[in-house]
Amino acid sequence: MALVPPIEYDEAAPGVRAIYDDIRATRDVDWINNFWKVLANDPATLARVWTSVKGVMAPGAIDALTKEMIYVAVSVTNNCEYCIHSHTAGARAKGMTAPMFHELLAVVALANETNRLANGYRIDVDERFRDPAPR
Amino acid sequence: MALVPPIEYDEAAPGVRAIYDDIRATRDVDWINNFWKVLANDPATLARVWTSVKGVMAPGAIDALTKEMIYVAVSVTNNCEYCIHSHTAGARAKGMTAPMFHELLAVVALANETNRLANGYRIDVDERFRDPAPR
Amino acid sequence: MALVPPIEYDEAAPGVRAIYDDIRATRDVDWINNFWKVLANDPATLARVWTSVKGVMAPGAIDALTKEMIYVAVSVTNNCEYCIHSHTAGARAKGMTAPMFHELLAVVALANETNRLANGYRIDVDERFRDPAPR
Amino acid sequence: MALVPPIEYDEAAPGVRAIYDDIRATRDVDWINNFWKVLANDPATLARVWTSVKGVMAPGAIDALTKEMIYVAVSVTNNCEYCIHSHTAGARAKGMTAPMFHELLAVVALANETNRLANGYRIDVDERFRDPAPR
Amino acid sequence: MALVPPIEYDEAAPGVRAIYDDIRATRDVDWINNFWKVLANDPATLARVWTSVKGVMAPGAIDALTKEMIYVAVSVTNNCEYCIHSHTAGARAKGMTAPMFHELLAVVALANETNRLANGYRIDVDERFRDPAPR
Amino acid sequence: MALVPPIEYDEAAPGVRAIYDDIRATRDVDWINNFWKVLANDPATLARVWTSVKGVMAPGAIDALTKEMIYVAVSVTNNCEYCIHSHTAGARAKGMTAPMFHELLAVVALANETNRLANGYRIDVDERFRDPAPR
Repeated sequence: MALVPPIEYDEAAPGVRAIYDDIRATRDVDWINNFWKVLANDPATLARVWTSVKGVMAPGAIDALTKEMIYVAVSVTNNCEYCIHSHTAGARAKGMTAPMFHELLAVVALANETNRLANGYRIDVDERFRDPAPR
Repeated sequence: MALVPPIEYDEAAPGVRAIYDDIRATRDVDWINNFWKVLANDPATLARVWTSVKGVMAPGAIDALTKEMIYVAVSVTNNCEYCIHSHTAGARAKGMTAPMFHELLAVVALANETNRLANGYRIDVDERFRDPAPR
Repeated sequence: MALVPPIEYDEAAPGVRAIYDDIRATRDVDWINNFWKVLANDPATLARVWTSVKGVMAPGAIDALTKEMIYVAVSVTNNCEYCIHSHTAGARAKGMTAPMFHELLAVVALANETNRLANGYRIDVDERFRDPAPR
Repeated sequence: MALVPPIEYDEAAPGVRAIYDDIRATRDVDWINNFWKVLANDPATLARVWTSVKGVMAPGAIDALTKEMIYVAVSVTNNCEYCIHSHTAGARAKGMTAPMFHELLAVVALANETNRLANGYRIDVDERFRDPAPR
Repeated sequence: MALVPPIEYDEAAPGVRAIYDDIRATRDVDWINNFWKVLANDPATLARVWTSVKGVMAPGAIDALTKEMIYVAVSVTNNCEYCIHSHTAGARAKGMTAPMFHELLAVVALANETNRLANGYRIDVDERFRDPAPR
Repeated sequence: MALVPPIEYDEAAPGVRAIYDDIRATRDVDWINNFWKVLANDPATLARVWTSVKGVMAPGAIDALTKEMIYVAVSVTNNCEYCIHSHTAGARAKGMTAPMFHELLAVVALANETNRLANGYRIDVDERFRDPAPR
């Protein structure tokens, strides 16, 4: 059970309700998941985080499905149970197939392995890799 | 300086040299980066990890560029300096533009934030998210 | 279920019982929480960790409530379910209000986000920040 | 060297410059640290993150110094070198003394230790701790 | 419930069944644990990871029990519930006694503490420690 | 450069000097490494941590070399540069050979990989693994 109770639509203050409406409209869904209902206990955080998620996760230079898979990659690395479930569901809704899901986890797992080899052996960054990132 | 010295092509044993050749051929590059030259101190690990990387990172249900970006996402979350540099370079070589790189880091950072909100509030996973993953 | 059974007061050896007594007296509570009852399976660790907690968490240059909130910040970052519950309860008992709890989690989450931006972009530490810490 | 170059005030676009001005005014400082100068390569992230930091770190139910110390706690746990330096400097500017800094690190370190004891032994959360958080 | 269903021996494809047989023969057990039954949804990952585990965990310069304890140390640090259970059971089957288990967790916890002291104070590596690792 | 200066033997207060003497005697070395010299800025932490390290790392049910390797495993997983160097040196001094070092890192890396597969797929713990740990 969450440390604070989820706030349902009917009991929400108008400001929170407006955000719930925006979440449903933006995502074209008819419900609000627990993440937002719990954040609603702190309307400032709810508003700030929803604005961030809405902006960052919108398709841009990277498409929405790839962004969801990146989200899953981070959530698996950090072991966030809630986020693994919610963003796997999100990626699936955006078109992630079963073979894509398996490959996603395989890449995440392998990266966690080689991260430790690189850090454990204290491997020096090759000069050729130090060029600035793409412009 | 790495905890063990990198092994250059000319001083490598035949088995290591064969893997170096395969790395260069597979990636169509004319050099070997430090990661492999350090792993070469332990030929069993070199062979095993190269086989894994070659298989997992090949384009499949997910394309090679997306896989590199997922690798960067994990490496940033874990703070692996070497891996951030090498896989950012890898993603760039495969077509990641500057706007894509910025969006990638924005998603990674935001996921790290919301992971802690979900874990900190101990938010319960919605039943609707618990369906099995895509087949 | 824990990997080893909790040891209740009545079944505890005298040395363990003395530590339980000290925990209850120091904290002015009438019960022992599972953390200590499980550690009691290894009396050396129980004694060492209790001595550490008693010393480190006592009010000093930083007050006891702030220390509990710092504890929550670490526990949320690491996703220690037990510690999030126990130290949120501890902070609450020492005066943490609901608005404080929300702000605490907001800071923790934001720090986790900006940590990845700083690490992901490999941002150089400003020289002005490198002065030694306060004396 | 950062993966993208820092953008100095004189070369910044008007929108970025306005944020730089706001950072300096809000913090009453006469310079901009590298974190913001690197984020400026992605004006959307710069704006979003600065808005978040400005809002979250302002004194509220928790004072500004305590918030900085919580930021240090997270940054040490995650090993973000940049953030440890910048937020230690920030806490120091807000009044953190040397004894406070030492106690802060002692609490952070101890929490990291007991987090692993709780997770390693898989200790069950006491029912008494499961009450909802403070209202 | 896992995100994909475990695949039982009787319903497994011949290639998966062959790996299950090898797992049972190698470990001299009469059952297959959930880890492999879930991975079997992705036969390529099943084959790759089993090959890695079989090779890496075999006794070599380090004995099999010590390897299991190292596995527990990593799993506790990362808070992988499944892995803590499975590798604690594995270590126990190979001879880990209760006092060894307690000492293992004590070392893991302490290392997590001192890791943060070293990182938090940004302690410089002593020159004497920078010698290459053992040959 | 560390956030606080190392304190050399000649400038140390008697209480700190006594701990330095005990470190040298216990380890049979003629110098003090930076970790302790930095902690000496906070004599309470120096005393507490040294007591813990002295007690926990002494040979017991697990030998001293294995304990050092477990320490390396945690430090690599957390990416503590200082600790990787110091405890690799410590393990080497106690008899870790090059093949052992390579196997150690291979196990650590693999565990980090499989931890994410178990967490990512949310694999259920097998009932057979839930038995209490060894007594």
